[in-house]
Amino acid sequence: MELKLPKKALVTGGAGFLGSHLCRRLLADGYEVTAVDSLFTGAKKNIADLLGNVRFSFVQHDITLPYRGQFDEIYNLACPASPVHYQRNPVETMKTSVLGMMNMLELAMNTKAKLLHASTSEIYGDPLVHPQTESYWGNVNTVGMRSCYDEGKRCAETLCADYRREYGVDVRMVRIFNTYGPNMHPQDGRVISNFIMQALRDEDITLYGDGLQTRSFQYCDDLIEAMRRFMELPRETVDEFCAKSSLGAPVVNTGNPGEYTIRELAEEVLCQLPDSKSKLAFAPLPSDDPKRRRPDITLAKELLGWEPKVALREGLARTIEYFRSAGKI
Amino acid sequence: MELKLPKKALVTGGAGFLGSHLCRRLLADGYEVTAVDSLFTGAKKNIADLLGNVRFSFVQHDITLPYRGQFDEIYNLACPASPVHYQRNPVETMKTSVLGMMNMLELAMNTKAKLLHASTSEIYGDPLVHPQTESYWGNVNTVGMRSCYDEGKRCAETLCADYRREYGVDVRMVRIFNTYGPNMHPQDGRVISNFIMQALRDEDITLYGDGLQTRSFQYCDDLIEAMRRFMELPRETVDEFCAKSSLGAPVVNTGNPGEYTIRELAEEVLCQLPDSKSKLAFAPLPSDDPKRRRPDITLAKELLGWEPKVALREGLARTIEYFRSAGKI
Repeated sequence: MELKLPKKALVTGGAGFLGSHLCRRLLADGYEVTAVDSLFTGAKKNIADLLGNVRFSFVQHDITLPYRGQFDEIYNLACPASPVHYQRNPVETMKTSVLGMMNMLELAMNTKAKLLHASTSEIYGDPLVHPQTESYWGNVNTVGMRSCYDEGKRCAETLCADYRREYGVDVRMVRIFNTYGPNMHPQDGRVISNFIMQALRDEDITLYGDGLQTRSFQYCDDLIEAMRRFMELPRETVDEFCAKSSLGAPVVNTGNPGEYTIRELAEEVLCQLPDSKSKLAFAPLPSDDPKRRRPDITLAKELLGWEPKVALREGLARTIEYFRSAGKI
Repeated sequence: MELKLPKKALVTGGAGFLGSHLCRRLLADGYEVTAVDSLFTGAKKNIADLLGNVRFSFVQHDITLPYRGQFDEIYNLACPASPVHYQRNPVETMKTSVLGMMNMLELAMNTKAKLLHASTSEIYGDPLVHPQTESYWGNVNTVGMRSCYDEGKRCAETLCADYRREYGVDVRMVRIFNTYGPNMHPQDGRVISNFIMQALRDEDITLYGDGLQTRSFQYCDDLIEAMRRFMELPRETVDEFCAKSSLGAPVVNTGNPGEYTIRELAEEVLCQLPDSKSKLAFAPLPSDDPKRRRPDITLAKELLGWEPKVALREGLARTIEYFRSAGKI
């Protein structure tokens, strides 16, 4: 009888919003999981329920410094992802994206681990084509207030593509569009958490600009499913894709193509919280704020057989429930 | 009587094409100059005539590792700049741009030195607007063969802008468009050195694509003049510019707006080398090769009172003379 050992996964940013969901999913899938997090924006409460699991370990570590260990799969999710957090320390944000990526790529190279990198729709910047396919090169300011995040993430993609070409590292990248759900940071300043918090507190809901800019909203479980499917693809499939696609790199959009205006979102939140006394209020648009962004997910459908399943109404209900029960009001 | 000590300048990439000209100029301007170079693409022969100067020092060092010293001015020119060099080791290219930039910014911050960073028109990628002003955000592939250079240089700009905003480092950036002149690397694979070398060797002159893509060609002395003028601006002038410009960062195009097709360039080279037996030959366009690029230098004129002085014909003559006398054929 053969003793089958569980596969080992490293999740950077494992105590963050998305990382905590991914850890939970990997444990459910039978993995031994190490979550690494600097706790700059992550929080141990997001993984409190996992700490007693013998297949789970948490390590407080900043991936701008090297990390060692033997893993089968590395999921690189570490980076402050909301402007309110990353603009607090732009240089550290850049270091997390770039040095963190280098450290994880070196680890993957030295230990022959697969690596999934969490890239972002922010690499498209304020897009001039709509919706965005993976072959769109983006429209990003190099020297603006958001640049530390956008350019850091662009650079991380370049590193992934080059470590794959130059050193044969088995990388896969997902470009994550707006994603929401339980464990979002209540002060991350992003639209869904803002609106829910404002509605729960009976404060006015702030719309920037005219509120007619659109966003797509992906529920976290849909994203985690896409990540897992991408990581499960055989390497040959990924290599074959890169060889025949003009992209030349294993990168896939994951997002929900359903498009809503910020105003529609606000109205849906208020609809689900009928007791709220909040009203809509308007404020000026921050500089470099993208006007419109929506994923083309054709490639994810083809390559991963994936599409989002959770409707905005349903995902919002679960998220509102989280914010309410977490007693954050 | 006051003893006036010379100002101290550090030039990274000081043994490279542009760095060697800058060292020579700074010595002529009375500076004490330290040239740092890894000699990956730089060469000591470019600065051979300076080695006996008591105000000049050469240090072989790779700026992906920190460098210490007390300088009044830092000129960050280190980075392989031609595709044939930077694609030989894409990951190292990225590290030179990003880690090198971080190390120089840290040095500038810790020693209160002014820093001039040599950025590039490559940050505009394959531009969708023409000519390019500094406010154009560019069109760059994150995962292509040229990305290590383009994205590394974009990231370096972001770091400069953020170190300035966050830590008050006195940075200035020039975006350098195609520049040529003596000390160019004969095997750098770029169009001017290629054409001259081919013509001197009586080999066919290779045009990629139809040869109708345009380029602007700046003579090296013009660029060095722009760099020196930018560095001589009082900090208050730079800060005032950043405060009132929508750019929000001290970044200026330097290039020659004169636009020539690659084919016209080839014909001018042949015209200056009437004894050459070379003919024009055509080859396929490499992937991601920008089709067209020309600087808008309005800002450099306004802020630096600068414009290029050396005509293509004259600059080419000096460059051909260099390649001929350097005995590289």
